[in-house]
Amino acid sequence: MTTVVMLTEDHPNGVLVDASKPLINIEDQGLTRGDGVFETMLAANRTVRKLDMHLSRLTNSARMLDLPAPNQNALTQAIELGLKEAAEGPQTVLGSEEHVVKIIISRGTAEEGAHSWITVAPAPQSTLEQRTNGVKALTLPRGHDPAEEGSYPWLLTGAKTLSYALNMAVLRYAKKQGADDVIFVTDDRRILEGATSSVIVARVNNGVKTLLTPEPNHGILPGTTQGAIFKAAQKNGWALGFGPLYPQDLYEADGVWLTSSVRLLAPVTHLNGNPLRHNEEFTAELLDYLAQG
Amino acid sequence: MTTVVMLTEDHPNGVLVDASKPLINIEDQGLTRGDGVFETMLAANRTVRKLDMHLSRLTNSARMLDLPAPNQNALTQAIELGLKEAAEGPQTVLGSEEHVVKIIISRGTAEEGAHSWITVAPAPQSTLEQRTNGVKALTLPRGHDPAEEGSYPWLLTGAKTLSYALNMAVLRYAKKQGADDVIFVTDDRRILEGATSSVIVARVNNGVKTLLTPEPNHGILPGTTQGAIFKAAQKNGWALGFGPLYPQDLYEADGVWLTSSVRLLAPVTHLNGNPLRHNEEFTAELLDYLAQG
Repeated sequence: MTTVVMLTEDHPNGVLVDASKPLINIEDQGLTRGDGVFETMLAANRTVRKLDMHLSRLTNSARMLDLPAPNQNALTQAIELGLKEAAEGPQTVLGSEEHVVKIIISRGTAEEGAHSWITVAPAPQSTLEQRTNGVKALTLPRGHDPAEEGSYPWLLTGAKTLSYALNMAVLRYAKKQGADDVIFVTDDRRILEGATSSVIVARVNNGVKTLLTPEPNHGILPGTTQGAIFKAAQKNGWALGFGPLYPQDLYEADGVWLTSSVRLLAPVTHLNGNPLRHNEEFTAELLDYLAQG
Repeated sequence: MTTVVMLTEDHPNGVLVDASKPLINIEDQGLTRGDGVFETMLAANRTVRKLDMHLSRLTNSARMLDLPAPNQNALTQAIELGLKEAAEGPQTVLGSEEHVVKIIISRGTAEEGAHSWITVAPAPQSTLEQRTNGVKALTLPRGHDPAEEGSYPWLLTGAKTLSYALNMAVLRYAKKQGADDVIFVTDDRRILEGATSSVIVARVNNGVKTLLTPEPNHGILPGTTQGAIFKAAQKNGWALGFGPLYPQDLYEADGVWLTSSVRLLAPVTHLNGNPLRHNEEFTAELLDYLAQG
């Protein structure tokens, strides 16, 4: 069961609502137009991980859509309330109780305007299992290079909007092909990102361990989890690399992962049906950085 | 006030619901992911115009998103119910009472699955006025050529989805620049379509009247109104053209219009702040074709 906290005029810091009943007006523009923004976060032991980074990205998304700036203090209180009331979450390999926390800001109805809410739910087992079992990924052309769109603010590149139909469609497409997830590539096969994740790659050369990811902020949604892993890895002696990656780099890598806030990191075990090297030690090491973070 | 008819298990052909109360679950994937499809239609004297074309496009959109095929008979009955109960609509220049009718299919919650509903509302005055007053349009780069995406079904090119945040963002952008609407162009400035409309152009040469539009089905959503106008115009002696159009063609044209189901057609009076030729006779002639259709 999902716990829902709505921020209302009477309860600007949030009030618990019964999510088993309809709560949303049928003319809400979040529904009729996918017109809104969101963040998905992981809470460990009822504390949201890297909340600041999520609130900062949410604020940026809201600004790009001309939505009112989120009240970060009110959202933080609403999240606390939701986490306090949430059903018990699973205990994970990281040794903590875990929940998925979402913030949604919708443009609302034309009459009543934008509104926000928080949802909190126990982390789904199927997602947690990907941390250890990994995923089979498929490379799919993105159809265009989002880096070319960076100078066109009206295209909302880099905003995390409710208009996620395409991301959902590619995941369904992957499942029909026997895969679990997707890695987008440009038409010249440069690696971009997952459908709902970032791509990171480990390479060991003459004893030097390097973590690589496609250049962030280059038409790719900056991954908060990728950022947290890179920060911790650098402190622990890894070299970092940002630059063009191609499928060949993934086949030749010592480890490839999809990273996202709830899943944290999932080793990519197969790419387009071909096995990839899966280094369980590296997976444990990077997960451990996140557990400490 | 909007009249809403929901198709439910108990009422597969639709039942009137009170839209002043919340009707949608907060975890409906139409809301959380923009995961659904829709059609917007015009009803004249409480009869939907070109319903078959809309139902056919809706069925195609649903198929592209792996949503259940819409029950066209049930939707038709639901629309009839909605139109019977709707508040009075305005009388328009076409001499008919007009309403906006929408069909929405959302993927619904994970537990309950996809569901559909109809909304009916009096046609808004601001939209109707564009038929005579026209619009100021801005050309904006689309960021990529959607024609290049046609072979990638997972990108949903050509599906009319609830993920419309970008279309709404460009309209806000246009308004900030003092314009009313947008005409998308490729990076090499080839004309594509409006934010929520098709572009058509009239050209008179040695007494031969030609209507032109960018090649449909080439990464552009096929416009049902553009299609209806072209069909009627051909019967009335116009030549038709489909092919690359550039801003220069619009500046040199004898008339430029944005066409869409509710607005029908709106003359473009200004492009990027520069006046365009506005032939009121042609506007009246093309509107008349639609009134007969």
